[in-house]
Amino acid sequence: MNFSSKLLENAVAEFAKLPGVGQKTALRLVLHLLNQDRDDVHKFSAAMTTLRNEIQFCKICHNISDQHVCEICSAPKRDQSLICVVEDTRDVMAIENTSQYNGVYHVLGGLISPMDGIGPSDLQVDTLVERLATAEVKEVIFALSATMEGDTTIFYLHKKLKHFNISISTIARGIAFGGELEYVDEITLGRSIATRVPYENSLSR
Amino acid sequence: MNFSSKLLENAVAEFAKLPGVGQKTALRLVLHLLNQDRDDVHKFSAAMTTLRNEIQFCKICHNISDQHVCEICSAPKRDQSLICVVEDTRDVMAIENTSQYNGVYHVLGGLISPMDGIGPSDLQVDTLVERLATAEVKEVIFALSATMEGDTTIFYLHKKLKHFNISISTIARGIAFGGELEYVDEITLGRSIATRVPYENSLSR
Ligand SMILES: [Zn+2]
Ligand SMILES: [Zn+2]
Repeated sequence: MNFSSKLLENAVAEFAKLPGVGQKTALRLVLHLLNQDRDDVHKFSAAMTTLRNEIQFCKICHNISDQHVCEICSAPKRDQSLICVVEDTRDVMAIENTSQYNGVYHVLGGLISPMDGIGPSDLQVDTLVERLATAEVKEVIFALSATMEGDTTIFYLHKKLKHFNISISTIARGIAFGGELEYVDEITLGRSIATRVPYENSLSR
Repeated sequence: MNFSSKLLENAVAEFAKLPGVGQKTALRLVLHLLNQDRDDVHKFSAAMTTLRNEIQFCKICHNISDQHVCEICSAPKRDQSLICVVEDTRDVMAIENTSQYNGVYHVLGGLISPMDGIGPSDLQVDTLVERLATAEVKEVIFALSATMEGDTTIFYLHKKLKHFNISISTIARGIAFGGELEYVDEITLGRSIATRVPYENSLSR
C-alpha cells in the first residue's frame, strides 16, 4: 500500500498485527478512529494501555480480575468443592451466562498444543494440582473445547489428577468435534454441564 | 456479557465501537493484546493517539499527510493541471497503486448522502472551486464510487464546475453499480482511468 502519511502507515501496521485483521480492514478501522474526537481516540488507547498495565489474575482460579481474588472465588454462595477447568476467561463468561453453574473455576490459560509449542508448564496445571492437594474439592469438571487440543489437555490432566479422591467429569458432548466452546449457544452449554459424565465413561463410549 | 473485570469490559466496549466489530470479536482482539508485552500494547495505543494528535491534511488536496503540503502536490513531475477528485485517502492509495495516473488529487472527505445527513458543506467542495479559480487546471476527473452517493456527488459537482473552461470527465465504468471504488482490482481501476469519458457523454449513454 502507498500510504500518504507515515503516522497513518504506522497505525495501520499496528492494527494489522491483530488476529484476523488484514491491511484493508486495519485501514478502515484507523480511518474511522481518525474521524472521531481526540478525546474519544484517547479513551480508546487508554482503555487498552490501562488494561494491560493494571490487569490482575485471581490468585486462586487465575481468571482475569481487578482484585487479588476474583468475585467468583470470594463469593460465599459459590460451591468451593466443585471446580470447573476451562481454557480462558471467555469460557468462564460463557458458562456464567448459562446460570447453570454454582461452583468455582480454574483457568488454564490455554490448551496443550505441541503444534504451537504449548506444553503443560505454560499452563496453570501445577496450581490446579496444588488446589486439589490443599482445598476441600469433591469434583473437577473439564469444560474444554471439543478439539484435538482440548482432548489432549483432558487426557494429560486426568493422569495428573486421578490419584486424588475426587470425581472427574467432562461436560457432555452435545458439541460437534472441532467446536470451539466459546461459540456454543447458552442452552447447549448449560445442558452439557448439567448432564456431565465421569471422564472414564466418556472414554469408553 | 459477564465480564470478570471492569478494565476488560471497558477495553472491549471501546473496541466494539469500531465499525463491523461485534462484542465477541472485540473480546478476542482485546485478549490477544492482553497476551502481548506491555511495550507492544503501548506501541499499539501510542500509534493511534499520535496519529490522531499529529495528523495533518494537505492544504492543497486535503489528503492525509505528515506535512502542510503532501508529497504528491509538491512533486515537480506530477501534472498540476489534472485533478482527480476522490472520496478519501483510500481511493488515492488505490489509484497510486495502478501507476496509471500522473496528475494530482482533490480529496472530498466523503460523498453527498442526504440519508446520512452529509451535504456539500461537509465536504471539500468550496476548496475545489477555489483551486479551479486560482490554479491552471485543464481537466477534472471524477473517480468516485459507482453508488447512489457517488452519482449524486458527481451531479452536484458538475453543476458547480461546468462554467469553468476545463474538461470534466469520469473514470470509465467498468465497475458494477454499487461497487465501492476501494475494492476494485488495480487493472480495472487503471484501465478505467485511461479510458475516462467526458462527463456529459457518460450521462447520455
Ligand atoms: Zn478466582
Ligand atoms: Zn496534496
